[in-house]
Amino acid sequence: MDFPSKLIEDAVNEVSKLPGIGKKTALRLVLHLLKRDEEQTQALADTLVAMRKKTQYCRKCHNLADGELCTICASHRRDQAVICVVEDTRDVLAIENTAQFKGLYHVLGGIISPVEGIGPSDLHIDSLLERLQGPEGQEVREVILALSPTMEGDTTAFYLQKKLKPYKIRISTIARGVPIGGDLEYADEITLGRSILSRIAYE
Amino acid sequence: MDFPSKLIEDAVNEVSKLPGIGKKTALRLVLHLLKRDEEQTQALADTLVAMRKKTQYCRKCHNLADGELCTICASHRRDQAVICVVEDTRDVLAIENTAQFKGLYHVLGGIISPVEGIGPSDLHIDSLLERLQGPEGQEVREVILALSPTMEGDTTAFYLQKKLKPYKIRISTIARGVPIGGDLEYADEITLGRSILSRIAYE
Repeated sequence: MDFPSKLIEDAVNEVSKLPGIGKKTALRLVLHLLKRDEEQTQALADTLVAMRKKTQYCRKCHNLADGELCTICASHRRDQAVICVVEDTRDVLAIENTAQFKGLYHVLGGIISPVEGIGPSDLHIDSLLERLQGPEGQEVREVILALSPTMEGDTTAFYLQKKLKPYKIRISTIARGVPIGGDLEYADEITLGRSILSRIAYE
Repeated sequence: MDFPSKLIEDAVNEVSKLPGIGKKTALRLVLHLLKRDEEQTQALADTLVAMRKKTQYCRKCHNLADGELCTICASHRRDQAVICVVEDTRDVLAIENTAQFKGLYHVLGGIISPVEGIGPSDLHIDSLLERLQGPEGQEVREVILALSPTMEGDTTAFYLQKKLKPYKIRISTIARGVPIGGDLEYADEITLGRSILSRIAYE
């Protein structure tokens, strides 16, 4: 693209560094900012910089936090006996939205991926094991692995299972099967096959 | 969504003000920035503010410019006799990419849209008429209306035709018809119908 202005070109280049945003979308966003008040661009820039500089991570579960502890770890209403292990904060939000889980979380900060050069030592695995030791750790009865049903997710889950085995707690994973509301004929064969293998007996 | 941090919530709210970006995408972008260096967020913020504060518009065609005139209006290689009227800068870029047009542009800065409360006085129509007057205006032989083939685009084109009539220059519009490379059976009936009405005779 041949930009009419260096300023626009620079802005488009910066914006298109964001994931999922190509040059065309970036240009659309930049031209939108030009149509709006100068204050709106300033506010966007200021909030992003403040967010990046001041955001903290919970020292217990590594979730995003405004202070030392995240709101979930700081709450006394949550079940301290169950820890749900997730890849990142978005997964915490997704599970919180279901309102089906009342325990604590542990955010790994990524997933084991040899292709991207991410190994176990890059993730918050040691701090998960530390949480299971000490007086507070005695209370933990179950660790739920809520990782994506992908190759990387399965690898990470397998690694964690091995690491968690010595602690003699229940280790579980979220159920995989046909999505609720989905039409059976449109389910992919791997999911459908697994859902038959992991069928649940009516009691 | 119940955000774990006020800073994240503010950032997501600001980012999701951009067109086509919902809360989920905004959160993905914000979390991406958190994973990258602080400098990257700072650079993004700085370029956007600089772009918004310093970008100028060409005093002749209202295209984006680094100085008083845009690169196209400032060039002596362009055909001064043809002016192509477009809605915004993105259309200039799209037409420039075709390398089929060597004339000048005039950027309206929008399109007549009663629904959005945009009338002819909100667009750069007066300055287009001014360009047709005076010594430079005598050179202009043709005005091409390159507006989107939508209700709003057609309304704007109709309004401009009336305004341009007294100037006794050629007024044209870009051809509408079936897109090249497109399969005829998948063309919508309005486009296909119009392409039959506006058929071109082999000479």
